[in-house]
Amino acid sequence: MDILLKNLRPLGQETCDMEVRAGRIARIGKDLAAPDLPVEDCGGALALPGLVEAHTHLDKSLWGMGWREHQAGPSLRDKIDNERKLRKEWNIDPYRQSMRQALLSLGHGSTAIRSHVDIDTDCGLAGIEGVARTREELAGQIDIEIVAFPQSGLMSRPGTLELMERALQGPADVVGGLDPCGIDADPKGQLDAVFALAEKYGKPIDIHLHEPGELGAFSMEMILDRTRAHGMQGRVTISHAFCLGMPDRDRARALVAELAEAQVHIATVATPSRPVPLAEDLRAAGVVLCAGSDGIRDTWGPYGNADMLERAMLLGLRNNLRADRDVEHAFWCCSGAGARVMGLAGHGITEGCTADLVLVEAETVTHAVVSHPPRRLVLKAGRIVARDGKAVQEAP
Amino acid sequence: MDILLKNLRPLGQETCDMEVRAGRIARIGKDLAAPDLPVEDCGGALALPGLVEAHTHLDKSLWGMGWREHQAGPSLRDKIDNERKLRKEWNIDPYRQSMRQALLSLGHGSTAIRSHVDIDTDCGLAGIEGVARTREELAGQIDIEIVAFPQSGLMSRPGTLELMERALQGPADVVGGLDPCGIDADPKGQLDAVFALAEKYGKPIDIHLHEPGELGAFSMEMILDRTRAHGMQGRVTISHAFCLGMPDRDRARALVAELAEAQVHIATVATPSRPVPLAEDLRAAGVVLCAGSDGIRDTWGPYGNADMLERAMLLGLRNNLRADRDVEHAFWCCSGAGARVMGLAGHGITEGCTADLVLVEAETVTHAVVSHPPRRLVLKAGRIVARDGKAVQEAP
Repeated sequence: MDILLKNLRPLGQETCDMEVRAGRIARIGKDLAAPDLPVEDCGGALALPGLVEAHTHLDKSLWGMGWREHQAGPSLRDKIDNERKLRKEWNIDPYRQSMRQALLSLGHGSTAIRSHVDIDTDCGLAGIEGVARTREELAGQIDIEIVAFPQSGLMSRPGTLELMERALQGPADVVGGLDPCGIDADPKGQLDAVFALAEKYGKPIDIHLHEPGELGAFSMEMILDRTRAHGMQGRVTISHAFCLGMPDRDRARALVAELAEAQVHIATVATPSRPVPLAEDLRAAGVVLCAGSDGIRDTWGPYGNADMLERAMLLGLRNNLRADRDVEHAFWCCSGAGARVMGLAGHGITEGCTADLVLVEAETVTHAVVSHPPRRLVLKAGRIVARDGKAVQEAP
Repeated sequence: MDILLKNLRPLGQETCDMEVRAGRIARIGKDLAAPDLPVEDCGGALALPGLVEAHTHLDKSLWGMGWREHQAGPSLRDKIDNERKLRKEWNIDPYRQSMRQALLSLGHGSTAIRSHVDIDTDCGLAGIEGVARTREELAGQIDIEIVAFPQSGLMSRPGTLELMERALQGPADVVGGLDPCGIDADPKGQLDAVFALAEKYGKPIDIHLHEPGELGAFSMEMILDRTRAHGMQGRVTISHAFCLGMPDRDRARALVAELAEAQVHIATVATPSRPVPLAEDLRAAGVVLCAGSDGIRDTWGPYGNADMLERAMLLGLRNNLRADRDVEHAFWCCSGAGARVMGLAGHGITEGCTADLVLVEAETVTHAVVSHPPRRLVLKAGRIVARDGKAVQEAP
């Protein structure tokens, strides 16, 4: 937790040294000496604050299980049902798979993860327990936040609400939800239940909202109403929010203004094939936009590698960001914004911040985003947790 | 040009050996012996046919010139004018930069490149000459096709047409054009000139068409008319073709049917921020869709790395391709389709094909696309031209 880092360039500034004590950045300066500390020469690498994977599914990845052909049909419901079936047939063990994915993330410089974890009447709390075990084993290496996520429906599958309660009494940190119209066909029922759980257990909320156009706008307005009514400002995130990419830009901007006023955050994957919330509109309104990989090589699709610098590139490409300052904002969406949404204090790369650091061979932040080179070194609170693109700890 | 490759898996099939003679795949089989040949053990790697970079700008990249902040304004015209200005100020040397980019491409497994090269009344033929010199120096390592490209306008900049003629009398292989309405504001004038040049010099055509919606459809119909009138079926490519991504899918599909009938090819970058031609529609109609990186880290934007496996991933993401067979088609767009458009005979990975080969650590073609790992080995007509992600030849 104590280390002297020599020859690094925080965010591309001039080469300097950094003294880390008790997991925090104690001093940044030229030619620092600290004879009591171990020394790591960073060779002039660019130093970035830890990346934050703010939307993924640690319990679902097939990473390391050998290549399996994609089998799901085209609809959202096809993918959900296919996954429930294959989870058993293929023995997708939530502990083993979340360990693999979390260590993959660590190798790419993510020092914090918000993971949605399935809860349903088939698997019960097995997913939550598996990811909680991973969190425990990786404590001190990566922060993992668990969203209790009723993937197969909350109102439409009786028994799920009780499982959600048990998860929140246990290891779950955040109340999840999804498509209150599209999946549950009971927006009032689902959203009342989600906000009631959040109030009862004092937890934040993160709701998947794939619903497009006016349907999504309708659900979003119901979420906004409840955010205000429950005094949950700053504690609610809407993931995907495809409806904000609707063609009627005026309507979308009016929704964005409401999100800003209610301090509701947005999490995006920057999906190239779907309408998405525009980074520029959200930024102009002051809405926090964090980002994630979503599922990584799972039964939903073959893509994903847990690299949040590559995700920043995708976010930049999706939003046509070209100026360096705009690409730097895409980087922030993949680091500081996620930390803000997860409530991680001390995220940053100035004196006093937690020493969650990523070192890469790049000239500037934008250069790091567009080239997303292997991570030379990753530190979590001053501890070296990955080198040359690989976590120090072996995956199971 | 003669080599025995041991332990490779063509397109993910069973492990086998491959005997290469005179630059061609002479035999594929188990436990081949050829005592007269040098042997390369491929360690069970996946073998792919050479990737094809079918739309890029070799003369423009800033690769290796140190990081430079993006300066261009938002419009197409801003970018064109900014580039003409910086080309001189920054000394963007077409020979040096095309060498750098071509070797970068080679390191990522592209064995053929179609490059548009600027011609205008400022730079004259300097770009064409620089890229032609690169082509000559890299002969036998990579195929480079040069499109004479009037980036700043053909009709609107008197003198450009004469330069185009000189380029086509010299090293240029293809007649280029762009946005006959949007840039030249003279669609009849530009397209008549382009087709006349093609006829006079017996060359194929590749026209950038950024024009969206009905404007692009109007220009596309003029291109289709001239393709039929000049008997140019199979020899015309339209690059970008954003108009095919228009919201009116029926109108777009009618255009696609016309493209199929006239055997006009489409080149795409799979731009995530723009409407694009849909891979599925083109495939269903039988239109060849090839792909490219477009500009790589140039004055137009900071993105790009010349990795056509990553481009296949972007094409898959942009088109929401998830099934393995669909991702394999995205791979074909980035290899075989480009070879078809460039008229490269013998592209493939069966006996008798040219031994343009890429070896990667992956289980299947789809796995290679989604993980786009460093290329272990690249061969051009049986000659090893890159290892471990880097061209054998040093860049200037």
